[in-house]
Amino acid sequence: MGNGKKLNQIIIKILKKNGLNTNHATICSKALINAELVGAHSHGLSRLKMYCDRIQKKVINPKPKIKIKKISQSISRIDANNSIGFVAADIGIKQAIKNAKKTGIGLVGIKNSGHYGLSGYYAEQAVKKNLIVFCFTNAPPAIAPHGAKKSLFGTNPICFGTPTSSKVPFILDTSVSVINRGKIRVAARNGKKIPEGVALDKFGKPTTDAKKALAGVQLPIAGFRGSGLAWMVDILSGVFTGGNHGGKVKDPFDDFSGPQNIGHLFFVMKPNLFVGNYSERIKENIKRIKRLPKIKGVKEILYPGQSKQRRYKKNLNKKINIPANIAEDLKKLNA
Amino acid sequence: MGNGKKLNQIIIKILKKNGLNTNHATICSKALINAELVGAHSHGLSRLKMYCDRIQKKVINPKPKIKIKKISQSISRIDANNSIGFVAADIGIKQAIKNAKKTGIGLVGIKNSGHYGLSGYYAEQAVKKNLIVFCFTNAPPAIAPHGAKKSLFGTNPICFGTPTSSKVPFILDTSVSVINRGKIRVAARNGKKIPEGVALDKFGKPTTDAKKALAGVQLPIAGFRGSGLAWMVDILSGVFTGGNHGGKVKDPFDDFSGPQNIGHLFFVMKPNLFVGNYSERIKENIKRIKRLPKIKGVKEILYPGQSKQRRYKKNLNKKINIPANIAEDLKKLNA
Repeated sequence: MGNGKKLNQIIIKILKKNGLNTNHATICSKALINAELVGAHSHGLSRLKMYCDRIQKKVINPKPKIKIKKISQSISRIDANNSIGFVAADIGIKQAIKNAKKTGIGLVGIKNSGHYGLSGYYAEQAVKKNLIVFCFTNAPPAIAPHGAKKSLFGTNPICFGTPTSSKVPFILDTSVSVINRGKIRVAARNGKKIPEGVALDKFGKPTTDAKKALAGVQLPIAGFRGSGLAWMVDILSGVFTGGNHGGKVKDPFDDFSGPQNIGHLFFVMKPNLFVGNYSERIKENIKRIKRLPKIKGVKEILYPGQSKQRRYKKNLNKKINIPANIAEDLKKLNA
Repeated sequence: MGNGKKLNQIIIKILKKNGLNTNHATICSKALINAELVGAHSHGLSRLKMYCDRIQKKVINPKPKIKIKKISQSISRIDANNSIGFVAADIGIKQAIKNAKKTGIGLVGIKNSGHYGLSGYYAEQAVKKNLIVFCFTNAPPAIAPHGAKKSLFGTNPICFGTPTSSKVPFILDTSVSVINRGKIRVAARNGKKIPEGVALDKFGKPTTDAKKALAGVQLPIAGFRGSGLAWMVDILSGVFTGGNHGGKVKDPFDDFSGPQNIGHLFFVMKPNLFVGNYSERIKENIKRIKRLPKIKGVKEILYPGQSKQRRYKKNLNKKINIPANIAEDLKKLNA
């Protein structure tokens, strides 16, 4: 079952059984398998059952009527009609690319969408068309605003991509939480401490106890700065697009009381708007940084996206390793 | 001399003596005094002598022929002809605002500029016209890329602004270094330690010794994440616009071997592109975050820009305090 091609067929079959058409099911399957290949297992197969559950509970619409409204040659607004996030985002990034190819810049705001997986996956699509790109999305409450002792912002990634003149795109896709919740869960399970400055307990006190951290809140990177960046992403992807915001995005695993109404914002630009030789310039930029003297133990200075690309290449021809519990889910969903 | 109005006249006189026209001198003076009023003294009067020195050494052009080229209704390219940064940025943000008012979005790339002071100052101009805004600029080497033991990125601020429906704009203007170099200098002078994770010594080893840190390098916020954000800003404001990049921006205080050729990128959007009620939505967003339970010792959750605005208001009717050495500079420059 770990073979990519076969796995793809299984996922498509499962999603079609849940009401998606072949095209939409294929879009989702590609995104899920890509997450596995780049090693982002928390955004891959482990979510398939959740998506199906949400469809069954009618909080994801398997047959959405997605409306694309043209605001100008450069700007489009999308109402995703509670589609699964992958489909809304796929349509959105393709529209942004189209607009940018036509006018130099493409701006697309999407509302009534859901969790779309990895921002970097959509950024890559634009970069492969030789475009510079920003992707913003919000997410369910996970980190506390600076000064608060309750989570409200999602891990709200900032994602930026650019062509590099090599085959490996520069894709910065960084959440604004200090560490992933998954890592705190693992530490709690193994009775290990977490670093300082990562989380607060439920009383709002700093803690290095993983269990207390899980009951409390995660902190944004760099205090007030990271909190501000998370807030910015909430505004851009939620307030601006018409999506939910200010802590109102529902947790997809726990809250089936309604659709998530996540918002996404995609902004795409042609790299040669201001200079004729962007490709040479970015190549030179990366070269200068890579040849800096390194600190002890560092073999190579990597640009964002490089190590992900290496994991992807390494995993591409290997069997995808599926944990027993997820294999069991797949079996049931496919029954 | 600390009175704002009189100070303004003195600065204008000094800059005109250095060859700037009244309009350009006024733009600079306003920006410098604003920096003092918001408490960013490192971006205020302490730089005036440096600007004059650079003009005298012919690495700032006091009579620039600034070329604005229209790429589309939304996009403009500016060659600032080595003007003082304040002037280039002022023209640039006004152009971006104009484009956005016309088409919904304005994108302006500026090259051959210099240090422009505070990004937030330009963001505010756009927000006051009821627009959402990004400002990016690069700067001389100050922080080391992740894995390197030599500085290359500037403190490269990320600046984002939005109207709030109140009189106080949301202006996030955050450098990607952990702490300001100025703070390390103060610690070194007072023989105090700096926090862990802030800097490396010249051998690339983490240090809490402020003097060793000054001889070494500063670190970006959040390790690889902050390094990626600094890299992103270098690409957007340098590689993309035609400005210097990859560590080539000269230190304005130390390096008079040529112009800085700093690049700036301004991106401005109408808030009502996707929703009809942005103003209500952002108000609700801020309200939800402000009413969260607070950690001990925190009286109020502030949004980015609020405390700066409070400092500004407090200082507006007070005498501007000018340290003796800077007063001496002003006296000499005004002689």
